[in-house]
Amino acid sequence: MSEIFEEIRALCAAAHAAAPAFAVTDTETRHRALRAMATALRENAADILAANKEDLARAKENGVPDTMLDRLSLNDERINGMASAMEELIALPDPLAERETLHGSPKIRITKVRVPLGVVAIVFEARPNVTADAAAIAVKTGNAVVLRGGKEAIHSNLAIVSALKGAISALGLSPDLISLVSSTDRAGVDALLSMRGLIDVLIPRGGKGLIRHCVENAKVPVIETGAGVCHVYVDRDANEDMALAVAINAKCQRPSVCNAAETLLLHRDIAPSFLPRFWAATRNWNLVLRGCPASRRILPAVEPMPEEEYATEYNDYVMSVRVVDSVEEALAHIAKYGTHHSEAIITQNDDTAARFFGMVDAAAVYRNASTRFTDGGEFGLGAEIGISTQKLHARGPMGPAALTTVKFLVRGDGAVR
Amino acid sequence: MSEIFEEIRALCAAAHAAAPAFAVTDTETRHRALRAMATALRENAADILAANKEDLARAKENGVPDTMLDRLSLNDERINGMASAMEELIALPDPLAERETLHGSPKIRITKVRVPLGVVAIVFEARPNVTADAAAIAVKTGNAVVLRGGKEAIHSNLAIVSALKGAISALGLSPDLISLVSSTDRAGVDALLSMRGLIDVLIPRGGKGLIRHCVENAKVPVIETGAGVCHVYVDRDANEDMALAVAINAKCQRPSVCNAAETLLLHRDIAPSFLPRFWAATRNWNLVLRGCPASRRILPAVEPMPEEEYATEYNDYVMSVRVVDSVEEALAHIAKYGTHHSEAIITQNDDTAARFFGMVDAAAVYRNASTRFTDGGEFGLGAEIGISTQKLHARGPMGPAALTTVKFLVRGDGAVR
Repeated sequence: MSEIFEEIRALCAAAHAAAPAFAVTDTETRHRALRAMATALRENAADILAANKEDLARAKENGVPDTMLDRLSLNDERINGMASAMEELIALPDPLAERETLHGSPKIRITKVRVPLGVVAIVFEARPNVTADAAAIAVKTGNAVVLRGGKEAIHSNLAIVSALKGAISALGLSPDLISLVSSTDRAGVDALLSMRGLIDVLIPRGGKGLIRHCVENAKVPVIETGAGVCHVYVDRDANEDMALAVAINAKCQRPSVCNAAETLLLHRDIAPSFLPRFWAATRNWNLVLRGCPASRRILPAVEPMPEEEYATEYNDYVMSVRVVDSVEEALAHIAKYGTHHSEAIITQNDDTAARFFGMVDAAAVYRNASTRFTDGGEFGLGAEIGISTQKLHARGPMGPAALTTVKFLVRGDGAVR
Repeated sequence: MSEIFEEIRALCAAAHAAAPAFAVTDTETRHRALRAMATALRENAADILAANKEDLARAKENGVPDTMLDRLSLNDERINGMASAMEELIALPDPLAERETLHGSPKIRITKVRVPLGVVAIVFEARPNVTADAAAIAVKTGNAVVLRGGKEAIHSNLAIVSALKGAISALGLSPDLISLVSSTDRAGVDALLSMRGLIDVLIPRGGKGLIRHCVENAKVPVIETGAGVCHVYVDRDANEDMALAVAINAKCQRPSVCNAAETLLLHRDIAPSFLPRFWAATRNWNLVLRGCPASRRILPAVEPMPEEEYATEYNDYVMSVRVVDSVEEALAHIAKYGTHHSEAIITQNDDTAARFFGMVDAAAVYRNASTRFTDGGEFGLGAEIGISTQKLHARGPMGPAALTTVKFLVRGDGAVR
């Protein structure tokens, strides 16, 4: 086996060995660790910024585009933001404090408790703040964490993890609870995916290619997150001004994120009036529209597009358009091309809205609101580790409880069946 | 592709097509279906028994052992039991009625609802009552179900499913909501495991080989159930009489089930006194003991056993024995050979019990009680579809809610970020 594989196995084995003792710590111990981690980020800001400078220099050399450089770049304010986010986690309820008494056989006393998953692996791309966020949510929930970030941020990530390890070690907790994989290529991901028995869940955060690779090759449990081909369907009975505001927001307010819309579905009765207005309103962003023949007959500026590209997540100022005959056709399109993330209908018709709510199979379904609201903060759930687009275990924004499971503790006095 | 594959794909596609409309039915519609299904079982008892007779005749010809014939065999009382179990499901709360209002952004109104998974596939072995139970729990929770039973029960299963399809059709529901795969070999399982996009979850119920095969080959989400290498650890500070009663019950009351114990771990201070008593008390059942050199020095009747066989789930009157130096050694043994199902400690020492509760990584952990209590009924959770031994989604006895997921319904009046 390769050196990378051996390094990662050793690191996962150390995390797995450190996890059980950490799993039974009390709320206050874990909150003290979060406070120490936040302080360590602020105190080591100079080292972290120096490392980040190195990452930025390399990225520029390699021709990384400006939007990505911005995501990669740290400054005092951003480091302080990472630290504050850790402190905010303390205010959220501790899922490990949950206790439920079950009423089963009178011979036994049953308590259902919530416990950490154990070792959580997070595979992510460029932004170094994910390193701090993921480590913090793991510590909040009593889990060990193994992080594998992108190559652009490797120096920043190493500096952040070094500060966090120092902080928890100083409290007598094992530094193996927070680890960073030094390899940033696919071999590192593949090694993690094979660590059955050492990793309890692996969460990929990033592009569709990374997520599909993880789901298809994992020998460990994976939670799919973040692939977002989200649709806005403008119904025949839509308020057109409202539709315009929502569609623009869903696409243009921040196109790089997973809850941004990729496709505009237009009822044929509203398309001739709506599409030219939408086009005019999005000239600010030079939004590119690509679509079906019917949409091109209404607006020649719409570029032709092969059918299969409706599956594309642009993450950019580009949008697919399709004219549909009915809400049924819109639902069929969403069922075919959607990623079960966030889907919106704009309509004043209660029956049509109810049908859309019932029939769309997605984590979040919207009526007369932008898909951009699918977010732990906007939903009032606090910090999130990702947006799950699968149905099992967690769906939608994943808060701290998504990193826990349950356990039944049963007490008897010699009870037998 | 093979004929079996095409048949199964057609059947899954039909279930997938029928599921969305069923998912939005109200509680009363689904409960009416359960009542009709129970009635249909009773009314078609003669046909079901005739089919069962055919299965039994073949099984006898093929030399199937008596214990298995008993599991396979139906009579009026057992059919009535299957029908009554369906009626009892009606009394359980409807998980789909759950609704929670979230307090997030003031611009939107967020409701978290519970929805069916969609299409649930259950792969199981001989007992025909699982056919009725699994179909009923799926109908209770608004799911379509695809069943694949063992070859020994194929005629019984076909007769049961035919009765159930008739019952739901008569109510105007799609008969595609309940299907049985006619193939009973591994190719049928493999076809089901590949139906990504058509099956939302596959639950194998059966031996370790079947479960491992499903987990390792699945392209659809799988919930691991029922593999049970359960341990009873008799601590130094145990009440010996209590330990005797619990260990006998855990092993001998019904050894064929997953929550029966397979291994007895004995603290070295108690083993010399306990082991001969346990041996004497289990002569009724001719229990075979196999174990480590230390246990054989205490009781020569213990047969020698290679270390790796501590991983064996006997499901029979056979038990592994190991003498350990400490609770730590018992915990290490359980971590190595356990299947995360049910683990028991017998001790009067509160500190040792607390350590065991904290450190054992299993769905259910017992103090001074038999592992045999891990069961939906005994836990007061009602009917179960299996015992999950994994950490994600569901753990321990899986009641109706395990066949559901959540969905966030968001309403705005043109809300944008």
